[in-house]
Amino acid sequence: MGSSAAPDLSTVVAILERVRARHPLVHCLTNHVVKGFTANVLLALGAAPAMVEHADEAEQFAGIADALLVNVGTLDEPQIAAMRRAVPAARAAKRPWVLDPVAVGPLAVRTRFAAELLVLSPTVIRGNASEVMALAGLAGGGRGVDSGAESTAARAAARTLAQQTGGAVLVTGQVDYAIDATREVAISNGHPLMTRVTGVGCAMGAINAACAAVADSPLDACVATAVLLGLAGERAAAAAARPGSFAVALLDALDALDADAIRAHGRIA
Amino acid sequence: MGSSAAPDLSTVVAILERVRARHPLVHCLTNHVVKGFTANVLLALGAAPAMVEHADEAEQFAGIADALLVNVGTLDEPQIAAMRRAVPAARAAKRPWVLDPVAVGPLAVRTRFAAELLVLSPTVIRGNASEVMALAGLAGGGRGVDSGAESTAARAAARTLAQQTGGAVLVTGQVDYAIDATREVAISNGHPLMTRVTGVGCAMGAINAACAAVADSPLDACVATAVLLGLAGERAAAAAARPGSFAVALLDALDALDADAIRAHGRIA
Amino acid sequence: MGSSAAPDLSTVVAILERVRARHPLVHCLTNHVVKGFTANVLLALGAAPAMVEHADEAEQFAGIADALLVNVGTLDEPQIAAMRRAVPAARAAKRPWVLDPVAVGPLAVRTRFAAELLVLSPTVIRGNASEVMALAGLAGGGRGVDSGAESTAARAAARTLAQQTGGAVLVTGQVDYAIDATREVAISNGHPLMTRVTGVGCAMGAINAACAAVADSPLDACVATAVLLGLAGERAAAAAARPGSFAVALLDALDALDADAIRAHGRIA
Repeated sequence: MGSSAAPDLSTVVAILERVRARHPLVHCLTNHVVKGFTANVLLALGAAPAMVEHADEAEQFAGIADALLVNVGTLDEPQIAAMRRAVPAARAAKRPWVLDPVAVGPLAVRTRFAAELLVLSPTVIRGNASEVMALAGLAGGGRGVDSGAESTAARAAARTLAQQTGGAVLVTGQVDYAIDATREVAISNGHPLMTRVTGVGCAMGAINAACAAVADSPLDACVATAVLLGLAGERAAAAAARPGSFAVALLDALDALDADAIRAHGRIA
Repeated sequence: MGSSAAPDLSTVVAILERVRARHPLVHCLTNHVVKGFTANVLLALGAAPAMVEHADEAEQFAGIADALLVNVGTLDEPQIAAMRRAVPAARAAKRPWVLDPVAVGPLAVRTRFAAELLVLSPTVIRGNASEVMALAGLAGGGRGVDSGAESTAARAAARTLAQQTGGAVLVTGQVDYAIDATREVAISNGHPLMTRVTGVGCAMGAINAACAAVADSPLDACVATAVLLGLAGERAAAAAARPGSFAVALLDALDALDADAIRAHGRIA
Repeated sequence: MGSSAAPDLSTVVAILERVRARHPLVHCLTNHVVKGFTANVLLALGAAPAMVEHADEAEQFAGIADALLVNVGTLDEPQIAAMRRAVPAARAAKRPWVLDPVAVGPLAVRTRFAAELLVLSPTVIRGNASEVMALAGLAGGGRGVDSGAESTAARAAARTLAQQTGGAVLVTGQVDYAIDATREVAISNGHPLMTRVTGVGCAMGAINAACAAVADSPLDACVATAVLLGLAGERAAAAAARPGSFAVALLDALDALDADAIRAHGRIA
C-alpha cells in the first residue's frame, strides 16, 4: 500500500489483469436482495464469490478468503453477529474489508452498527453522498445526514473518514470520487440505467473488495472499481436500452472488459 | 378512496403516470426467493423498492415508505416479528399495505399468522383462488380451502374479505378479478409464460402496493396492477418464447408500457 | 428402485418426460444466493419449486412435496433447525431427498452437520470431488479432504458413500460420475461457462431431486441430471458466449430439451 502516485488507467488495467489471474475469493456478507446478482458480477469480472453466513463459519472463513464485504442493506441480528466476528478475523489475517453503509443515517439499527464498524477501520467505504456524510457524522467529523447531499460536502466527509480509518472512500454518484487521506480522483464513467437495476451499487462494493485484494493501495482499488463498473455500464447501455436486458448485458460487459477498452474509454480526472 | 365509478383504462393510465412521476417507495417484507426479481419489477415500472428486515427498522421504515407489502411465502420467526411491527406502523401512518397470502390454507404457521394479519385490515389482498378462499374461511366467512378452487367461489370469498377489511381483493388466475365491497372488475390480460418464471405472482403484490400508494381507491390499484403486469406479460411473450428470455423481456416490457398500449390492449370487463 | 441395468439415454428421455407430465413438487431448503435461480431452473425443466423455511412448516411440507433438497451453502441456525425436521419427515413419507454438501470439509459447522445428515441416508449426494471426499471421510471411509481432489479418489469415496447410504452419488466436474453401490456411469456433457454463473451447481442438486421423484432408481436420477443440465449448458453456450446471456440461455435450453436432443447429444460412458 505504498503507492503515492495518483492511480491512472494503467493502474486499472493492472488490477483487472490481477483479478483475472488470481481470482480473489471475496467473502460477501451482503443484503438478501442482491446476493445472486453480486455473485454473478464477481464471477463475470473474474473473481470468486462466497457467502458464508453462520457466525462461527463467517469468522473462520474471513481468514481464508482474500477480502471481505460488509453490506448492511438488510441487516438482521444473525447477520450482525456474523459481521461482528468476521471483521476482526479479516483484520487479524490482514485481509482488506469493505464497508457498504446502505441507508445509514435515517435507519437506527444500521446507523448504530455502522458506528461500531467504523472503529474497525474499513479498508474501503463505498457509499452515496448521503451515506458517506451520515457516516462522517458518526465519526465525530461534525456532519450528520444532509438530505441535500451535495457532492462537495460528501467529498469533505469522505476525506474525514479516510483520515480516520487510514483507508479510502468511494463516493458514488453521477461522478464518482475516490478519496484517501491525501489524494482525490474523480471518475466519470457510468450510465443512468445502472440505477434501474437492483444491486448495481451493492455489487460495486463487492467489486471494490475484489480489487482491494489485488491492488497496491485502497485508493487504487476504488478508482479501478469505479472505472470497471462504469465502463461496463456504458457498454451494456450501448447494447440494451431497457433494464431487464441491461442487467444481462452488464454481466456480459464485465466479462468482455479489456485493457484496450479501459485505455480508450476510462475517464479519470 | 371516494371513487365509486368503476375503474377503466383511463384509471390505469393515470396510475402508471403517477407511479412514474412520484416513484413511490415500496417497503417489501417478502419471501427470500423473489426479493431480487421483485425489486427489479418495481424499478422497471418506475417505483422504488426497499427491503428493510430488522424488526426495529421495519417498524421505523413503514412510516417512511409510501406503501408496505407483506408476503408470507418464506415466513420465518424474525420476519413474523418484523411484519407484526411494520403493519401497525404503516396503518398509523395511513399508508396502504398489501397482504399476499402465499400458500395460506395447507401450511399451518402462515395460516395462523394470516388470520392475525387479516384483523389489521389490509388495503389489498392479492392471491390465487385457493388462497383467497382459505383466507375467507379464516375470516369466518364460512369457506375453507377448496382444492377445486372455482373462480366463482373465489369471487364470493373475495367479496366477503373486502367487506370485512374495507379494502379490495385481487384474485389472480387466467382471468383476474378485482373486487371490493360493492364492485367487481374482470381483467383478462396475461400470458401462460408468466407461470414459468418464479416470483411473477409475488411481484404482482409489489406492483399492487406501488399502485395503491398513488391510486384513488384500493379497487383502482388492483385493476391497474392486473392490466399493467398482464399487458407486460403479453408483450414479453411476443418477444421471447421461453422462460429465461421471457423473464428479461418482462422487465423490459414493464419499462416500455405507455398510455397507447394500455388503451389499445387493456382488457377490462 | 429395482432397476439393475445401467441407465442409458432412454432412461434420461423417460425421466424428462415424467418430470414434464407430473411436475414433481421439490421442497428446496437451499442457500440464500441461489434460491431464485434454483426455482427458475426447476420451472424451466417442468418441475415445481417450493421453498418453505419455517421449521414447523418445513416438517409439514416435506410430507406434501415429492422430493426434498438440502443444500448447506449458507447454513444458519434456523435453517439447520428446519433441515433437522424436514429430512425425517421426508423419509417417513418415503420421499427421496438430496444432500448437496457445499464446501463441506474446510468449514466447521456445515461439516459437523453433514455428518449428522449422512446418518439419515440421503437418496442422492451431489457434490464436487473435494466435497464427496470430505463427506466420505466423515463417513469413516478413511478419506479426509484432499485438496488435490483427484477424480479417481472421488470415485472411490463416492462408492463408499453409496454403500453406506444405499443411495447414489453424483460427483460433478469436467466429467460427472453417477455411482451407486455396484454401478458407475460417466457423463461428459457440459460447458465451462456453467462455472461462470452462480448457482448452476446448486441447481443441479434441485434437478436431481426432481428426477429422483420420478426415477426408478437413485442412479437413474443422477445420470438424467448430469445429461439434462450438461446438454442444456452446451446448447446455451452455442447461443450465448458470455455469462450474463448464458444464464438466460441456460433456462431457455432446459425448456427446449427434448428426446431427439438427448438421443443425439447425450454422452454416457
